[in-house]
Amino acid sequence: MAEKRWAFEDFQEGQVFQLPRRHVPADEIIEFASEFDAQPMHMDEEAGRASLLGGLAASGWHTCAVFMRMMFDGFLRDSTSQGSPGLNELRWRRPVLAGDTLSGHSTVLSKRRLKSKPDVGLVTFRHVVANDRGETVLDAENPIFFRLREPEGSQ
Amino acid sequence: MAEKRWAFEDFQEGQVFQLPRRHVPADEIIEFASEFDAQPMHMDEEAGRASLLGGLAASGWHTCAVFMRMMFDGFLRDSTSQGSPGLNELRWRRPVLAGDTLSGHSTVLSKRRLKSKPDVGLVTFRHVVANDRGETVLDAENPIFFRLREPEGSQ
Repeated sequence: MAEKRWAFEDFQEGQVFQLPRRHVPADEIIEFASEFDAQPMHMDEEAGRASLLGGLAASGWHTCAVFMRMMFDGFLRDSTSQGSPGLNELRWRRPVLAGDTLSGHSTVLSKRRLKSKPDVGLVTFRHVVANDRGETVLDAENPIFFRLREPEGSQ
Repeated sequence: MAEKRWAFEDFQEGQVFQLPRRHVPADEIIEFASEFDAQPMHMDEEAGRASLLGGLAASGWHTCAVFMRMMFDGFLRDSTSQGSPGLNELRWRRPVLAGDTLSGHSTVLSKRRLKSKPDVGLVTFRHVVANDRGETVLDAENPIFFRLREPEGSQ
């Protein structure tokens, strides 16, 4: 396996990863909703306007999936990531409306090695995703497992 | 708009909604991952076996999306849902492996009306999703907004 850029040892508290921007068109919102979350405000512009969300808006889970793609392209793709045990908190602060372009960053809050698996550590991130009007649409605190590059040599 | 079965007034603390079962085949895992989370353990059986997850495993976000579909089919489809502000906590307890069939239930923890919007209330659920070996794969605490049926008449 090719050497990965980001192993557990490479993350430092306070480090910030800028994530690539991603456009969310209406047809992708409707496609995701049709499969997973066919509530009217995720399927139809008029129903969206009549809802609390104020327009055709992405399912919150679609926003999460788009954010995941941004994080994958941003740094996880070239990392030793082994997945995540969950989210300590996640807030959908505002709806993602059809045609929005999202940007985001992930900040390292803390890191620790696992006692049970000496070759794995947990890095906890704070993720923030914003729309092109500068409004936060999602934030979350999220631990992710990474393999160590040199389990024997590092502390 | 047709009358919905589940408006804010209809939820009671302790109420349990059983969700329909849902199969998660390998091709759907790979399709979701290709679009949103192309980490090797979500794309390839061999890479999955070499990872902490132990086999070709759904992205945690895919598990969330499948759960959302189960909840939509279970009761949200026929409700006054207006979306959700987020998750107080979410845990991916075990990987969802290719071929697993998921079941789940949502329990009402609490409910309250919004001061800022008299026609809307917030119902907080505890969701639990399990595989066909009886193991919990996901649990989460999740508030959801619902419109009231009769904002004037109810407390």
